[in-house]
Amino acid sequence: MIATKGFAVQDAKSDLAPWNFERREVGPHDVQFDIQFCGVCHSDLHQIKDDWGGGIFPMVPGHEIVGKVVKVGSHVKKFKVGDLAGTGCLVDSCRTCENCEEGLEQFCLNGFSATYNSMEQDKKTPTYGGYSNTIVVHEDFVLHISDKLNLAAVAPLLCAGITTYSPLKFLGVGKGHKVAVLGLGGLGHMAVKFGVAFGAEVTVLSTSPSKEADAEKLGAHKFVVTKDEKQLESVTGYFDFILDTVSAPHDLNLYISLLKTKGVHVCIGVPPKPYEIHAFGLIGGRKSIVGSLIGGLPETQEMLDYCAEHGIVSDIEMIDIKNINEAYDRMVKGDVRYRFVIDMATL
Amino acid sequence: MIATKGFAVQDAKSDLAPWNFERREVGPHDVQFDIQFCGVCHSDLHQIKDDWGGGIFPMVPGHEIVGKVVKVGSHVKKFKVGDLAGTGCLVDSCRTCENCEEGLEQFCLNGFSATYNSMEQDKKTPTYGGYSNTIVVHEDFVLHISDKLNLAAVAPLLCAGITTYSPLKFLGVGKGHKVAVLGLGGLGHMAVKFGVAFGAEVTVLSTSPSKEADAEKLGAHKFVVTKDEKQLESVTGYFDFILDTVSAPHDLNLYISLLKTKGVHVCIGVPPKPYEIHAFGLIGGRKSIVGSLIGGLPETQEMLDYCAEHGIVSDIEMIDIKNINEAYDRMVKGDVRYRFVIDMATL
Repeated sequence: MIATKGFAVQDAKSDLAPWNFERREVGPHDVQFDIQFCGVCHSDLHQIKDDWGGGIFPMVPGHEIVGKVVKVGSHVKKFKVGDLAGTGCLVDSCRTCENCEEGLEQFCLNGFSATYNSMEQDKKTPTYGGYSNTIVVHEDFVLHISDKLNLAAVAPLLCAGITTYSPLKFLGVGKGHKVAVLGLGGLGHMAVKFGVAFGAEVTVLSTSPSKEADAEKLGAHKFVVTKDEKQLESVTGYFDFILDTVSAPHDLNLYISLLKTKGVHVCIGVPPKPYEIHAFGLIGGRKSIVGSLIGGLPETQEMLDYCAEHGIVSDIEMIDIKNINEAYDRMVKGDVRYRFVIDMATL
Repeated sequence: MIATKGFAVQDAKSDLAPWNFERREVGPHDVQFDIQFCGVCHSDLHQIKDDWGGGIFPMVPGHEIVGKVVKVGSHVKKFKVGDLAGTGCLVDSCRTCENCEEGLEQFCLNGFSATYNSMEQDKKTPTYGGYSNTIVVHEDFVLHISDKLNLAAVAPLLCAGITTYSPLKFLGVGKGHKVAVLGLGGLGHMAVKFGVAFGAEVTVLSTSPSKEADAEKLGAHKFVVTKDEKQLESVTGYFDFILDTVSAPHDLNLYISLLKTKGVHVCIGVPPKPYEIHAFGLIGGRKSIVGSLIGGLPETQEMLDYCAEHGIVSDIEMIDIKNINEAYDRMVKGDVRYRFVIDMATL
């Protein structure tokens, strides 16, 4: 077994603190890479607080993981020692169901293994995430990272990046489309970057006028304060797509009214309560609501390659791991532009 | 003006009763046809009771109208005296907006003119529907009806038919797809017929076991009683599409769980209260909910032609117009298989 250092919570009421644990030996198809940076996702906080229930403790969070390969198994073909490598939200899946065969491992019909707070495919070995110094993952769930990009700023692509890239891709967003991004946070700022890169006209919808300058810097073409009725009216029936990154309760009917005929509202945030949706808002314009969850492995690699080619990374603020609890407090307040990344050298 | 006999409600609290009114003279682009049959849609009852508000009284309901052309305007090219003709839910639209230009007049951005309880495009002349002996409609909103089919049974195609045909078409439903039809009423029974005709495997989802024999007669391949947990479990994650015709309150989350990955739940009923939808049900499988409203004129003609070619009509029960109020009572109880059609000769 491989002795590993990390930060964990021992139960849902504790803060993150140092914890030593073991990872499996590198098997024939495994890649071990030392973690240099790990992004801080809002879901890390939900999970250590067990907001969604079923938490597996001790819990080492982190699923935006990048670093350098230190060991490869005897059958590994895709990686060699010294390569840059990354792992996102998934470390394994059944690989045999129709969704896995289609490269949609995030919808594995037999249950994927999440990078932490989950079980390996044996359904009994807990997984531990990226707030740690090293990780062992089957090569099929390890991604190649280009050395052209700032490695720390690549980390959030593994979750925030693919979560926004995937729906824009499967909906075929591109030139001529009007896209709104609802919520300018970790997900939203990546959605703006991808929307702009794909050639769409991108509007940021926000309750907070203070974000306008940032939206512009990120490349957004328009900014609409959703509390301003006049501004809202100017975009009624306007958008082809709305990418809704908001996890706080919000009124979807309002946003559906901003869609044009056949427009699509994409949910990638998970509010704690159900949406209340009036049927007529959808029926009166053949409008739809679709949910999207991260992305499969092939698409995640495609996204990383696209980012390398187009110089796209996340806007980050680097932190030492000892400041993680403080960073969570700031994240809850929306006081981060736009993603905290832990420098694992500080572990 | 053309003296017209009909049945109307004088206000939201009255029953339907005979009423004489006038229709416009036949203009250069108008077609006048004498009404032989008119289907009874559930929305007729909602509108005469002013359930949705904004009712225009006196109100002559009816938007599933078929009959024989008796007069055409000097510029009319598509019809001649003696032709069979039909009109559905729309009698006009702006014809210039992008939706009208695309043949989606039901989404006219300047507001379509509904066949009744609406205004002509002058926005001041009320429209009166098909519970009457004759009607004058611009030729672009009159449909050709084949003489191969039972004319009375064609009437419901103009609303119930196109409302179910359109979503199955724009979603590309066909061979290899598993389609569920939720609710076996006027809309549902047409959805079964079209789904089967398009080559899909069709399952009827119903709370009432008593409808199984009917579902089979209509051509459905499977029948699932939604109150039976075991039966429900057997179709969890099973369907590509669910066509939801139900206008009573119901739990969409349950039906979303019956969709497979990337499955689509189509809403064509309008429940009085908003749907409560858990985001994760959609996100966890890239599932979507889409609304659909009747169909545009080109698609309605396409549907009628398809029905003529494939021998598809509605299952109807013919009534005399004097029995219309009693028919409404039975419709509310679901006691009709599957659509009342008024024989206008009884007016």
